[in-house]
Parts: sequence; structure tokens; C-alpha cells
Amino acid sequence: MEYRKIKDQDKDEDSVVDDVESLRGKPLSTAVSLGIGPIDRTVWKRKSMVTLALTVLTSSQAILIVWSKRAGRYEYSVTTANFLVESLKCAFSLVALGRIWNNEGVTEDNRLSTTVEEVIVYPIPAALYLVKNLLQYYIFAYVDAPGYQILKNLNIISTGVLYRIILKKKLSQIQWAAFILLCAGCTTAQLNSNSDHVLQTPLQGWMMAIVMALLSGFAGVYTEAIIKKRPSRNINVQNFWLYIFGMIFNAAAILVQDFDAVMNKGFFHGYSFITVLMILNHAMSGIAVSMVMKYADNIVKVYSTSVAMLLTAIVSVFLFGFHLSLAFFLGSTVVSVSIYLHSIGKLQR
Amino acid sequence: MEYRKIKDQDKDEDSVVDDVESLRGKPLSTAVSLGIGPIDRTVWKRKSMVTLALTVLTSSQAILIVWSKRAGRYEYSVTTANFLVESLKCAFSLVALGRIWNNEGVTEDNRLSTTVEEVIVYPIPAALYLVKNLLQYYIFAYVDAPGYQILKNLNIISTGVLYRIILKKKLSQIQWAAFILLCAGCTTAQLNSNSDHVLQTPLQGWMMAIVMALLSGFAGVYTEAIIKKRPSRNINVQNFWLYIFGMIFNAAAILVQDFDAVMNKGFFHGYSFITVLMILNHAMSGIAVSMVMKYADNIVKVYSTSVAMLLTAIVSVFLFGFHLSLAFFLGSTVVSVSIYLHSIGKLQR
Repeated sequence: MEYRKIKDQDKDEDSVVDDVESLRGKPLSTAVSLGIGPIDRTVWKRKSMVTLALTVLTSSQAILIVWSKRAGRYEYSVTTANFLVESLKCAFSLVALGRIWNNEGVTEDNRLSTTVEEVIVYPIPAALYLVKNLLQYYIFAYVDAPGYQILKNLNIISTGVLYRIILKKKLSQIQWAAFILLCAGCTTAQLNSNSDHVLQTPLQGWMMAIVMALLSGFAGVYTEAIIKKRPSRNINVQNFWLYIFGMIFNAAAILVQDFDAVMNKGFFHGYSFITVLMILNHAMSGIAVSMVMKYADNIVKVYSTSVAMLLTAIVSVFLFGFHLSLAFFLGSTVVSVSIYLHSIGKLQR
Repeated sequence: MEYRKIKDQDKDEDSVVDDVESLRGKPLSTAVSLGIGPIDRTVWKRKSMVTLALTVLTSSQAILIVWSKRAGRYEYSVTTANFLVESLKCAFSLVALGRIWNNEGVTEDNRLSTTVEEVIVYPIPAALYLVKNLLQYYIFAYVDAPGYQILKNLNIISTGVLYRIILKKKLSQIQWAAFILLCAGCTTAQLNSNSDHVLQTPLQGWMMAIVMALLSGFAGVYTEAIIKKRPSRNINVQNFWLYIFGMIFNAAAILVQDFDAVMNKGFFHGYSFITVLMILNHAMSGIAVSMVMKYADNIVKVYSTSVAMLLTAIVSVFLFGFHLSLAFFLGSTVVSVSIYLHSIGKLQR
């Protein structure tokens, strides 16, 4: 694994401070008066903002999915939507880069041109996700959709383990305990009267679920490794190259899966207002994920998306009249305690 | 509250070392060679043994209840059985005392005679349990039996809070987190498809459940306060006086509730082999609870009975062909992490 261990704090602050979520010009006087260094404060603030953005975007994403399901089945082709999401992310990255070039000029760190050595690893996460998405079609031979939702919580454990192994970052004993609790709590919150079916999953189903969790965890951790390998490199350039390969892979998916449909009915057939909203939301969530990888890490990402899952359920009570189960309250309690333990369990440096 | 704060370790080791669970004559050489003081080692060993005894007795108790239910409904009067349990505990305490008197002679600490000042607080736990048992009849107007089992987990929280307030012992932040997890984990492990009914419990039901949890927690914590008030006093003398009042209260219950039945059908009507086993088990569990109060504390008791609940479920799979639910696995995971956190979260002294 070709990669360099980097601390959360980037050493080169100025080159990355201006990005899509511009944090420039924030008053630092309070931070200074509290005895916290302005750089620490900026780092903490940026980390919190990208985490908050990811949480809000992920939960609204799930709500949009529920909304679109209520409005009727997907009429549009999913591959074209995925392609548009990647294209939109590319466009956002270029717009952000344009602004930075205007303000700061083109530097070594924010120029778009790259080397083969830098870019060669960028297709790997996209390829891993592709394999995972292909497996997804086969796992449904062994588990139903709600069972798959339950098994997806294995991602939490695989991310923690791969984070430890690949990025060589340590979690404290308490943080490991918190991570197991996060997995148990999220699963508990999703329990319903049919959940026990998942225990009858045949061995092949379990194996596939574990492989998928490992692929998904590996893709996430590897993305973090790529982005953090060059801490001073502008995140928008890194995103641009990640998303370019996303576009290429999704264009290939359109050709393979939906070529006839797109040719006969048109690229935008079945698109509605909510489809556009979902594409916009996916694009922004994708950028938020990259930002979390750059300024925080995969652990923060997992916590963020878990909290988003709970928020979605609570918001759905008001929006769609859903009922919260006792299992949801218990799972939420366990997740809350897990977050608390993760924060107090920080390793003494 | 008349009581003196006592450390877990009794200062006066010799006077309490010989009791019902005689630990005398254990080899201490390994402890010494490990660099642990022989007294610390004895204290730790005794604490572990009484905790283990309580766990095993409590889980076998639950299994006996399942067994007796399978064998048919209760034919015997519960009040006579309770009275016999208290009498048996009294008898066990006296036998243990007799052995101690033979070995050590009668001392200030192991003599049975007492003062009004010592004994006046002993009826209080028995009275609290009586009030709680009376309330139990009324709460079923608001919740069903499975719902009541769920609500009984509030005992865990009430015991923790009252332990902190009345015994003024501190738990660390991590231990508090572990305690909340214990409550959530035990409840999760007991979830079934009807558990959500408990969320429809009317306010009166919740109030009664909370009052009952407080009464039960208060009785437990108060027993610990009584027993630990005189650390050098022999536990068998303390038990004798506790159980005497238990006998008196239960004799009154026979007179009030089952006088006619006992007079017409006889005291032992409907007793079977399993009834005798259950009475024996209850008596021994009761003594184990007292021992845990003396040599450990209410927190250990709560953990012990929670683990017993999980053990019961696992043993029932083999004995009665029960199925374990996904919720049980998740709850057990959370309880296990809670135990781990409790042990690593010890306050630095």
C-alpha cells in the first residue's frame, strides 16, 4: 500500500483553507482569547462544518428516497442519474477551483494538471464501488431488502478494522468499544418484527455481506489514504480526479445496462422535480464525504452517516407519520452513548 | 439516613473471613508471588465467588420458573413458599453461625444478641419490598406481563442513581455510560414483536413503574447501607435479623391472603419436587444477594442479575428449544461491552 501517514491537522494551512465550503474570514478572536490556537480552532471548525454538512445531506437524501418512493416507482434510468451526479461533482469542483485560481493564482498545489504517479490510484475506489454494486444484485438471492439493510451495518465494523490496518491509525480501547456499540445500536434502531429472518441467511449470503462490507470499507479507507497522501494538494483538484473516473465508470454502465432505453426514450426520460433534487443532493453529499475524508476521517464519516440514519427516522415521523419503535429508542440510546464514549475515549497524545 | 460510608475492603478481615461460603485455608502463595497483597487477593476472590454464586443461582432460578410453568400452573400458595424461603435463610444463617461459634467462640461481632439501635433499621427493606409487591397488583391494570418485564429494567437506572445519592459512592463517567448501556442492552435482549405495546403505557403506568423501580432500588441500596454500616459485624448475624423480619412480614401475608386456603387444604398443599427446588434456590439466592451487598455492592448485583438473565436465555435454548432473536444477540453485545467498560472505567483512587 503506497501511502504516507498523515496527522489530521494539515501542516500547510493556507493552501487548503479556501475551498467549496469557504471558511475564509471567520473571526478567530474568541478562539485566541480562549487560549486555543487559531489554527487548531480553524481545523476544528472546518471538521465540524463538513461533518454537519454530511449528516444533514445524508439524512435529507434518505428522506428524498422515501418521498420519491411514495410519489411512485423510479421511472428514470438509475445509471444516467449516477452519471449526472458524478458530472455535477466534477463541475462543482471546477467552479470552486476557478474561484481559487482567480484569488490566489495557479500554484503547484491547486493546478489541475497531474502526474501518472498521482492519478494512477484514483480509479481504485470507483472500481471497488463498481464491484460492490455488482455483488449487490447477487446478494438478493440470499437475503431480502430489509435483511440487507441490517447486514449493511457490518460496514461499520469493516471500516473500523480497515482504518486501523490500512491507515495505521489507533483507536483507544474505549473507542473500539464505542465502535462495536455503534454497530449494535444502528442495527437495533432498524429492528422490526421481520428482522429475525436475517438469522436464517445462508452461509453464502453471510460471506457475500462480509465481502461487500470489506469492499465498501476498503473503498472508503482507500479514498482517505489517497486524499491524505498529499495534504497540501487542493481538495478540489483531488475531487476532480476522483469524480472524472466516477464519470467514466458510470458512462460505461449506461452503455452496458441502459443503452437501448436511453436511445429509444431519451437520456432524461422519467426525470421529475424530485429526481433533480435527489441528483443535486447526491452530488453535494459526495463532495461532503470527500471533505470529511480530507479534514476528518472515515470514523467521523461512519458516525455522521449513523446519526443521519437516526435523524431520518425522527424527521419521517413528522413528514410521513412514521411510528418510532421501542427498538429505535434503545438503538438511539446506544448510538448516543457510543458518540459520547468516542469523544471521551480519545487517545492521549 | 443513618449510615457510615465504608470502603469495599473491610478493615477487620479476620472477623468476617469465615462465613457460610467459607474461604478459609485457600493457598495465598500465588497471590503473594504475583505481588498482590494476600488481603486484597482474599477480598477479590470472595467478591468474585459471591458474584458468581449469585449469577448461577439467579439464572437457575429463572430456569426453574420456566420449568414449573411448563409442568403446569402454580398449585401451591405463594405466600407459604415465601415464608419457607425466609425461614430457610434464617436456618442457614444460624447453622453458619453455629460453626463459627464452635471455631472462634462467641465474640462482640458474631453474637446474635443485638441492640434496638442496630436492629431498628432491619425491617425497612422488607417493608419496602412489601409495598412494591402490593403495587405490582395494581400496575397490571396499565401494562401486561411482558410490558412489565420491559419496564422492570428501570430498576437498573434507579439502583445506579440511588447508589450514588444514598451511599454517596461515585461512578466514573465511563461507568455511568456503561450503566445506561446495561439498561438499554437488557431491554433490547428482551424485545419481541409485541414489545412496542409498552410505548402505549398510560402516564399512570409509567409513574407506577418509576415508583416501583425507586422502591426496589431503594430497598437494595438501603440493605447495602445497613450491612456495610457495621463492616466487622458477622454477615450471618446481619442476615439473621434481616430474614427474621422477612419471616414476620410473610407470616402476616399468609394470614391476610391465604388463611382459608391453608386452613382447609393444609400448609404444603400442591407442593411438588420442583416447588421444593425453587424454595431452596430462592433461599440460596437470597443469601448470595446479602453476601454481594457485604463484599461487593449493588452495582455488582445489578450486573450479576443482568448476566444471569442472558445466561437463562442461552440455557433455555438447549433445555426448552427456545430460539434466540437478533435483538437478543444485539442486547447481549451491548451488555458485554457495558461490563467491559465498567471494569476499565474504574475511578482512579
